[in-house]
Amino acid sequence: MKKPIFIAALALLSSTAVAVTPATPLKTAEMLRDAALKDDVAFDITEGLTTEVGQRMAGTEAEARARDWAVAKLKSLGFKNVRVETFDMPVWVRGEEKAEIVAPFPQKLTLAALGNSGATPPEGLRAEVIGFDSLAEFQAAHDALVKGKIVFVSHGMVPTQDGSGYGYYGAARRQGPSIASRKGAAAIVIRSIGTDHHRNPHTGVQSWAEGVTPIPAAALSIPDAEQLQRILKRAGNRPVTMHLTLTPRNIGIQQSGNVIAEVPGRDPKAPVVLAACHLDSWDLATGAFDDAAGCGITAAAAKRVMDHGQPLRTIRVVWFGAEEVGLFGGLDYMRKHPNEHAVIAESDFGADRVWRFDSRVAQTAQPVVQDIARALAPLGIAQGFTDQAGGSDIGPMAASGVPTMELQQDGTRYFDIHHTPDDTLDKIDPEQLRQNVAAWTAMLSLTSNAAVEFGPMPPVQR
Amino acid sequence: MKKPIFIAALALLSSTAVAVTPATPLKTAEMLRDAALKDDVAFDITEGLTTEVGQRMAGTEAEARARDWAVAKLKSLGFKNVRVETFDMPVWVRGEEKAEIVAPFPQKLTLAALGNSGATPPEGLRAEVIGFDSLAEFQAAHDALVKGKIVFVSHGMVPTQDGSGYGYYGAARRQGPSIASRKGAAAIVIRSIGTDHHRNPHTGVQSWAEGVTPIPAAALSIPDAEQLQRILKRAGNRPVTMHLTLTPRNIGIQQSGNVIAEVPGRDPKAPVVLAACHLDSWDLATGAFDDAAGCGITAAAAKRVMDHGQPLRTIRVVWFGAEEVGLFGGLDYMRKHPNEHAVIAESDFGADRVWRFDSRVAQTAQPVVQDIARALAPLGIAQGFTDQAGGSDIGPMAASGVPTMELQQDGTRYFDIHHTPDDTLDKIDPEQLRQNVAAWTAMLSLTSNAAVEFGPMPPVQR
Repeated sequence: MKKPIFIAALALLSSTAVAVTPATPLKTAEMLRDAALKDDVAFDITEGLTTEVGQRMAGTEAEARARDWAVAKLKSLGFKNVRVETFDMPVWVRGEEKAEIVAPFPQKLTLAALGNSGATPPEGLRAEVIGFDSLAEFQAAHDALVKGKIVFVSHGMVPTQDGSGYGYYGAARRQGPSIASRKGAAAIVIRSIGTDHHRNPHTGVQSWAEGVTPIPAAALSIPDAEQLQRILKRAGNRPVTMHLTLTPRNIGIQQSGNVIAEVPGRDPKAPVVLAACHLDSWDLATGAFDDAAGCGITAAAAKRVMDHGQPLRTIRVVWFGAEEVGLFGGLDYMRKHPNEHAVIAESDFGADRVWRFDSRVAQTAQPVVQDIARALAPLGIAQGFTDQAGGSDIGPMAASGVPTMELQQDGTRYFDIHHTPDDTLDKIDPEQLRQNVAAWTAMLSLTSNAAVEFGPMPPVQR
Repeated sequence: MKKPIFIAALALLSSTAVAVTPATPLKTAEMLRDAALKDDVAFDITEGLTTEVGQRMAGTEAEARARDWAVAKLKSLGFKNVRVETFDMPVWVRGEEKAEIVAPFPQKLTLAALGNSGATPPEGLRAEVIGFDSLAEFQAAHDALVKGKIVFVSHGMVPTQDGSGYGYYGAARRQGPSIASRKGAAAIVIRSIGTDHHRNPHTGVQSWAEGVTPIPAAALSIPDAEQLQRILKRAGNRPVTMHLTLTPRNIGIQQSGNVIAEVPGRDPKAPVVLAACHLDSWDLATGAFDDAAGCGITAAAAKRVMDHGQPLRTIRVVWFGAEEVGLFGGLDYMRKHPNEHAVIAESDFGADRVWRFDSRVAQTAQPVVQDIARALAPLGIAQGFTDQAGGSDIGPMAASGVPTMELQQDGTRYFDIHHTPDDTLDKIDPEQLRQNVAAWTAMLSLTSNAAVEFGPMPPVQR
C-alpha cells in the first residue's frame, strides 16, 4: 500500500505547532485528529465483531449475539448508559439456492436469493430463460413474451467514487422482481448489482410492491451473468432452459435492537451529537466493510473525544440493528427519539479513505462547519455540499430536517465487495481506516463542543 | 489494460520489412507472428469450450461432452486425422462440503474437498481444531498432540512470476493429508494454495501415500483460513471445535481420452512437433485459465502455420484428458506414442503474456533455437534456460529425454485463480492471449520446418 500524502503533510503540521498555543476547539480537534492516525481501536472492534460473531443477519440469534458482544465491548471502552432498545420485525431467511442450465449447454450457475424472494417448489422449477440487457428494456417488453419464463436482467454496473451509481443500477434489484411478477414471469434472476468479477453473488433487499405476489428472485454472480449472456447468444434460436431452486422462508416476527452508548456531555440538556453505524450484516459474510468498520470508526472516534475530557454535548453512539433488510432500526430509533439531536452522522460505506465532507446545518453553525473543513483538509478531504448530507439508518431523520453531516468515503471498490461472501476483514486497509477515525474524531470533537444552534432545517423536498 | 510496448516495436519492424526479401524460415515465422497479433481463433476456442461445455471434470460425462466439442471444433478448423484415444481411470467426485465452527465463535466457513479426499460420516464429524503455521511445523508436532483432531495447516503462498512457488507452498496440499492420516488426525483442512483474497477455495489433487488410510481433506478459502487463524488466537485457552461434513466418493473406473488433431507434414516419416494443452478442468469452474486458453493458443497457432502452407514436419495438436487428477492422459499418450517426436511443448499456465523461452534440445538444433529466440524478442520474450524445459502432461516425456521447448507465461496472478470457482472467461485478457498465439506461431513455424535433429536428450537426472 502506498503511503498516503497526507501523512507527510500532517507530520509537517505537527512539528510546527507551538505547545503554548491556547487550546481553541480547532487546535484541540487537530491534536486529537493527529493522534487518531495511530488508532488501533477501530480495527480491533472490526476484527472482534467479524471474528467473534461473524455474520449477524437481522432478527436472528446471530444478531442477538452481536448485540451482547457490542454491549460488552462498548462498556469495556468506557462508554456510559450502554443499553439495547429492542424492536420487532418480520424476518426472511435464505434456504437452498441452485441454478442449472439444462439445455442446450448443461452447467451450474452460482447465485444468491434476494431479500424477501419467494420460493420455488422444493424440487425447483424449470422454465425457459428470456434475457434483457437493462431494466428499461425489460419494462418495455410485452407481458406475453415474459409470461411463465425466467426473466434475466443483465446490466453491468460501473463504479463511481461517490457511490451514486447504486441508485441507477440498483433499480434492477429493487424494482425488477415486482415488475417480473406483474408481467407473469415464473422467476427473475439479475446480474449482481456489483463491480467485481468474482464468483460471489451480491444479495440485497427488495420489497414487493403493493398487491404483488412474491416470485423467486435471485442475483447471479457477475461471471455467471456474463456466462448466461454468452449462453443465450451461442444458443441462437434454441431455447435456453434453466432449473432453479430457491427455498427461502419467512420465519415471522422476531426481535432486533439498537445498541446505544454515550459520552455524557457537560450540559445534559443540550441536544446530542449522533455518531451511527449498523450492527447487522448480510448472512453471506462477516460484514467487515458493511458495516463493522463503520462501528469501529465511530466508536473509536467518540472514545478519543471522551478520553480527552468531557465534551459540552453528549455524543451518542448508536449501532443500529436491521439496516440491511429495511432500515428497521433507524425507523424505530427515529420514533423513540424525536427532537433530541444537534447533529447526526453515520459511517456506512466501507473503510476506504474519506475524500469529501458534506453538511446540511443552519447558518448559525457555519463557523463550526468551516472549522471542521479546516481540520479535515490535511487528511486530503475536500469540502463538498453544504446543503445536503445523509446516511443509511439516519436517512429518514436527515430528510425530516435534523441537521446532518457526512464524511464521504471513497466508494470506487465498495461495490466489488458489497453484500457478497467476500465482505471479510482482509478487505480493510488499516491505514485508510485510521484516516477515517481521524476525520470522525475531528468532526465529533468540534460538533460536541460547539454551543451554536445547528438547526432545525426544513424537511428535504423530493 | 495498458497497451504493451511490444506492439509499437512490431509496427516499426513491419513497416521496415522489405516485401522482396526471400522467405527464409525466420522471415516466414516473423510474418506469421505479426499476423497472429490479430488472432481471434484462440479466444473463440476458449469462449466456446467454457461456454458450451463449462466445467469438464476428468472421467465424467462433462469431459466426454468436451471431447465431442473438441473433435467438432478441430475438424471445423481444418485439422486432419482428428481422433480420440480413450483410456480408463479411477474417478473421484465431490459431494456435500460444509464446515462450521461450533465453539467458541459459531460461524460457517467456506471450503472445498481436495482430490481423493476421504469422506466424513453423512452427518459430519466434530472435533477440536489444532493449527499449524506451516507444513514443517505440523510435521514436527508429536502425534499425540494431533490424534483425533482436525489439523489446520495455514501457510500463506507468495506469488512468483515463474510459478516456482507452487512446488514449495503446494506441499501442504500434496503431502499434508497423508502426514495427517499417519499421525492419527480425524481430518485436515489447509489454507488454499493460492494468492488471492476471495471466498473461493482452491481445490487440487493429492494422492494418499502407500498404505495410508484416506481421511477427509479440504482447503479453506484464504479469507476463511485467515478467519480460522484469528478464531484460534482470540479463543485463547478455549478449545475451537469444528463440525466438518465432506461426502465425496469414488465412482470406480471410468473412461477419459486424449483428443488428437494433425497438420500433416510434407515428410510423413519425420518426427512430429507436439503442441499440447489439457482439455479437462476442475469441477468448480469452467477452467478458462486452466486450461481452455492453452488449447485455444496452441490450436490457433498450429492453424496459422497450416494455413500458410504445408510444413516439413507434422504438427500434432493434443488436448489431453484427465490432467488435473493425475496426468492420466499424458501418461497414456506417452505409452502409446514412443519415439515419434522431434520436439514437444505445452501451454498450461493461464493466458497472461509469455515472458521467457526455455528449451532442452540437442546441439544440432541450436540454430533453430536461436531463430526462435530472435523471432520472440520483439514480443518481449527473453531467452531463458537452454538446458531445461517442461510442461504438465508432457512432463514425464520431457524427463525421459524427448526434446522440449517451453514458452513461460507470467504466473504472477495465476494462483489467484487456479483451481477455484473464479477460473472463468472474464479472467482472460484478449491482448495477452494474442501475444501467446504469436509466440506459439513463431515457435511452431520454425520447429515444424527445421530439418535438423532435435534429440534425443539424456533422461533428466533428479
